[in-house]
Amino acid sequence: MNSFGRIFRVHIFGESHGESVGIVIDGVPAGLPLTADDLLPDLERRKGGKQKGTTPRQEADYPFFKSGIFNNKATGAPITIFFENNNTRSGDYEKQRSFPRPGHADFVAHQKYGGNEDFRGGGHFSARLTTGLVAAGAIAKKMMPGVNIHAEVTEIGGEKDLELGLQKAIDAKDSVGGVVECRVSGLPATLGEPFFDSVESHIAHIAFAIPAVKGVEFGSGFAAAKMFGSQHNDAIENMEGKTSSNHAGGIVGGISNGNELVFRIAIKPTASTPKQQHSLNWETGNMEDFSIKGRHDLCVALRAPVILEAATAVALADLMLLEQRIQRVWK
Amino acid sequence: MNSFGRIFRVHIFGESHGESVGIVIDGVPAGLPLTADDLLPDLERRKGGKQKGTTPRQEADYPFFKSGIFNNKATGAPITIFFENNNTRSGDYEKQRSFPRPGHADFVAHQKYGGNEDFRGGGHFSARLTTGLVAAGAIAKKMMPGVNIHAEVTEIGGEKDLELGLQKAIDAKDSVGGVVECRVSGLPATLGEPFFDSVESHIAHIAFAIPAVKGVEFGSGFAAAKMFGSQHNDAIENMEGKTSSNHAGGIVGGISNGNELVFRIAIKPTASTPKQQHSLNWETGNMEDFSIKGRHDLCVALRAPVILEAATAVALADLMLLEQRIQRVWK
Amino acid sequence: MNSFGRIFRVHIFGESHGESVGIVIDGVPAGLPLTADDLLPDLERRKGGKQKGTTPRQEADYPFFKSGIFNNKATGAPITIFFENNNTRSGDYEKQRSFPRPGHADFVAHQKYGGNEDFRGGGHFSARLTTGLVAAGAIAKKMMPGVNIHAEVTEIGGEKDLELGLQKAIDAKDSVGGVVECRVSGLPATLGEPFFDSVESHIAHIAFAIPAVKGVEFGSGFAAAKMFGSQHNDAIENMEGKTSSNHAGGIVGGISNGNELVFRIAIKPTASTPKQQHSLNWETGNMEDFSIKGRHDLCVALRAPVILEAATAVALADLMLLEQRIQRVWK
Amino acid sequence: MNSFGRIFRVHIFGESHGESVGIVIDGVPAGLPLTADDLLPDLERRKGGKQKGTTPRQEADYPFFKSGIFNNKATGAPITIFFENNNTRSGDYEKQRSFPRPGHADFVAHQKYGGNEDFRGGGHFSARLTTGLVAAGAIAKKMMPGVNIHAEVTEIGGEKDLELGLQKAIDAKDSVGGVVECRVSGLPATLGEPFFDSVESHIAHIAFAIPAVKGVEFGSGFAAAKMFGSQHNDAIENMEGKTSSNHAGGIVGGISNGNELVFRIAIKPTASTPKQQHSLNWETGNMEDFSIKGRHDLCVALRAPVILEAATAVALADLMLLEQRIQRVWK
Repeated sequence: MNSFGRIFRVHIFGESHGESVGIVIDGVPAGLPLTADDLLPDLERRKGGKQKGTTPRQEADYPFFKSGIFNNKATGAPITIFFENNNTRSGDYEKQRSFPRPGHADFVAHQKYGGNEDFRGGGHFSARLTTGLVAAGAIAKKMMPGVNIHAEVTEIGGEKDLELGLQKAIDAKDSVGGVVECRVSGLPATLGEPFFDSVESHIAHIAFAIPAVKGVEFGSGFAAAKMFGSQHNDAIENMEGKTSSNHAGGIVGGISNGNELVFRIAIKPTASTPKQQHSLNWETGNMEDFSIKGRHDLCVALRAPVILEAATAVALADLMLLEQRIQRVWK
Repeated sequence: MNSFGRIFRVHIFGESHGESVGIVIDGVPAGLPLTADDLLPDLERRKGGKQKGTTPRQEADYPFFKSGIFNNKATGAPITIFFENNNTRSGDYEKQRSFPRPGHADFVAHQKYGGNEDFRGGGHFSARLTTGLVAAGAIAKKMMPGVNIHAEVTEIGGEKDLELGLQKAIDAKDSVGGVVECRVSGLPATLGEPFFDSVESHIAHIAFAIPAVKGVEFGSGFAAAKMFGSQHNDAIENMEGKTSSNHAGGIVGGISNGNELVFRIAIKPTASTPKQQHSLNWETGNMEDFSIKGRHDLCVALRAPVILEAATAVALADLMLLEQRIQRVWK
Repeated sequence: MNSFGRIFRVHIFGESHGESVGIVIDGVPAGLPLTADDLLPDLERRKGGKQKGTTPRQEADYPFFKSGIFNNKATGAPITIFFENNNTRSGDYEKQRSFPRPGHADFVAHQKYGGNEDFRGGGHFSARLTTGLVAAGAIAKKMMPGVNIHAEVTEIGGEKDLELGLQKAIDAKDSVGGVVECRVSGLPATLGEPFFDSVESHIAHIAFAIPAVKGVEFGSGFAAAKMFGSQHNDAIENMEGKTSSNHAGGIVGGISNGNELVFRIAIKPTASTPKQQHSLNWETGNMEDFSIKGRHDLCVALRAPVILEAATAVALADLMLLEQRIQRVWK
Repeated sequence: MNSFGRIFRVHIFGESHGESVGIVIDGVPAGLPLTADDLLPDLERRKGGKQKGTTPRQEADYPFFKSGIFNNKATGAPITIFFENNNTRSGDYEKQRSFPRPGHADFVAHQKYGGNEDFRGGGHFSARLTTGLVAAGAIAKKMMPGVNIHAEVTEIGGEKDLELGLQKAIDAKDSVGGVVECRVSGLPATLGEPFFDSVESHIAHIAFAIPAVKGVEFGSGFAAAKMFGSQHNDAIENMEGKTSSNHAGGIVGGISNGNELVFRIAIKPTASTPKQQHSLNWETGNMEDFSIKGRHDLCVALRAPVILEAATAVALADLMLLEQRIQRVWK
């Protein structure tokens, strides 16, 4: 459902154009120093409107702590973080309600919830909900001081030259997909649980929860499928397990091996393309031409790195607690 | 840990060269007709030694029901299935214990379990454990009579011509990777839960539990990252939600949309390549030459389709039960 | 942790003297009509200050829906309910911080959270958190229209005459314990899961989460331990399973049998007795005399019935969903 | 379902007259020395036929390790333990199938599983399944070397003089109930989680899974409901939290406080009384006289202490791991 994690547990809630979005975070070690300032840099990175190709919608995105913090430290009780939705223009969405937008959850949400879903701006399916995830990620990062998580866009529209990739989309007046790579250094070996809770399973589970993600690969990933064993195997160099190459992306047998964790996600083009589309009109029952209104990212991949970092941090913090690599009371 | 699922729950156990491997399956609807014959076809497909490029190790792989079956029907209580390990040659592994095998879990398992792990044949990390998963998958398939799950190898060593791909590896005397594609027809819309338990999350979680899987992509997957929105969006054709294309692979917003579910996994080359390797010797602390003994698949992807089908069936049966698409008592 | 339930899931948060308390409720069927008015009657019952023996602290206790409601119906997404804490007098607690109050969580919370806990008014351990539980219970009740849940105080201070029991405490200027009985009619048979998730297990789990509960018994309960089998066995009268007596309290083999569900909880005397106490002073390390300040219930059992009803409703709604006795979309 | 625990997880399976009963135990620290000899003393205590008032049915009850053990130590992988059912006389049960036995699960199991349940000897509802639980308990005890768990019968048929209580039943040719008390010394403070996973919740959950348990009370329990606060509060004597009395039974605010854990369970009389009964005949639809055949305990409470110890150990080991009081690799 809307929860993730075994010991470090997050519960997400909210709708794009409802009153708020937010998250409840259970399992933060008591004593962890924590203020809004710890969250703001990542929340700022998540915002659109700052760079070419992102939505002009701007929310203050200020994280209101509603529980779990006392004297600027985590108490050990659940931390609730709220974000108000102030800058919504639901009217845009009402108008196009007759068209379930291709690539969006409109049609499936209507089927699943019998028409009771909050459809405005994608409702509970909106990427706006990742605000809470980014907040949880910032806390998770702080729980793992020696661990460095960094994600970045490595490809837009098939181009490694990101500017070129983006300009292609701007010129085509179309949205475009991209690839985001995440690297984690300082991660200890022994994380991950057999059989079902491999590091790959745990990270992929939450990575696929990020809207628009359609692929996840670790280390050489799909390229590994084209390789010989003698090429792919990472020779072990020393008693600490350092490997001379890293085709495995830092995970062997589902367990972290102490080398850099490396993985990539494929992000589909923003479903809300500016282009005219031809699809079902719910009211007439026929396919008709229509255009998407509202403010949207041309390339959602551009906003994904900080979200992917957050998802990764949440997954790893849970595995770290499970493996007793984080104390439950902060010194 | 070694469990998967929320309502349809599987618990896996066993070691490659221990006494047995098996699985406990909770949540099978009472009344489902079930005998060993229902499991044997898929178990037969999982076995090696039948085709070029698979291990000559042969196990009878006969599924012994130890609980949960009465009068050839599921009782509603947990079903326990046992496979005996009769055909083991642990001596092969003892000899090479001084080398933690690159690409295998030897090194990480030793770190994680402090040297107490059963290392013979990979122990609990062995692909032999997928026997239980295949059994569970056969049961899950039977629980969903209208749903058809089919997986097949679509690429070996980068070649769509599988014979060619495999021959390349045989000629090179090396192991090789591959891609397996899975297609599911007859799946109802509305499966999957927001935010964290998307169909992609649920399937990827269990798919990454299959040994050697390093990538999972749905629909167009990584190719979607290279596309424009106008290319990727699947237009909706009618009130049932049929789409004119299927770049989404049957999942939008994390929810199944009633179209064919399509996804692929990347399988790395068998870590046990016949080629000589140069890696750490635990006893000397130095990197040295060595060769892998034992019986191994040249291309594990060849045995993966039925395992992937099983993983998919287990994940979908759980989502179907959660969405009340399967009755808990069989009529 | 702070979550309960498998399909109908509640996540509780907040502190007595923090900014708020509340709850996130996942798994409410889409379409369920829901407004604050549905919650207010039970919330009103939970409040103190209305009857002799309850705390004069008064909160407005108005439930603010922050997510999951659209057009006065549940959307199928998580419902977040907030209660503001307006009427706090933390100063009362600061003064007596040097004495970890006997019978309260002060000492254990300090040990568990290393002194980082929000100690004001019991913080996260306060009975104030049951406000959220009562709100969830009101929703759960509404999900089960044919099921009637009713709890009431049956004993105070050992007296069946409640007025007498309470007056004894008032006269003694002491707090006092009590017994609350809960009866559920209209409950279908077949609820509960073997082996570990019996109806008794599920209900007792959440009942013991209510502050001050020290015992739970079903049907004849502890009296059953004094009986012969021929006295205790409930003869079955007809094909619907109606029994001629109900010593089992409606549960046999852990499964509901369609008869009335009956159980009782023992509630200890309010730890905050008005009497002077002699216990550890943290600052001096010695036992010293002190008195509890603040506003407290003389008999918390008086406020417990609606909380116990809520806990019961939450547990039963989860079991009902699991047994597919509630549709996930409301018609 | 048939699983319990968050980190130390047990999965139970089997039927009374099927091929076997057993348990899968996940989360045992790697390196823990473990052989059948560690389990036999508790398994021996669980057996009937040794003392007056217990069933003459005798099983060898030898625990066969099927996974998770290597070189007489836990490997960190799931431990599977099997018990064969050799000494069954199902014929006894076939004959009385027309009468759903009062106090047994026959009727509810038939309703829940649509007649597909294994009804022989109670099937999956039989107390025979506690064999696996006792095995898991013995392992859990070994994981907590400083913790001493001891349970004993304190009352039979309302008599503190156990011989007297039992003789009353023998004379009456009837089965009889009893009370079992469990005491745990050496338990650290800080176990248990707010809000829902109090120590009481966790222990009561598994205690109510034991067949025939109808009540659970901690410390003074139901007697606390008759007390004044000044009587019930346990004064704290020193900085370690030692209390001068122990009405709380070692748990305050749901958290262990380092004092002795004390609780009791009420066990109903064995449902299979030797007395003639008058209840529904499924075949005729009428109430008729009948007598129970088979071998049964006159007082199941007599066999309960070791089962309750096991349940307690399993619950506490899980809380200890969660609180990081047990290392996941054994030194």
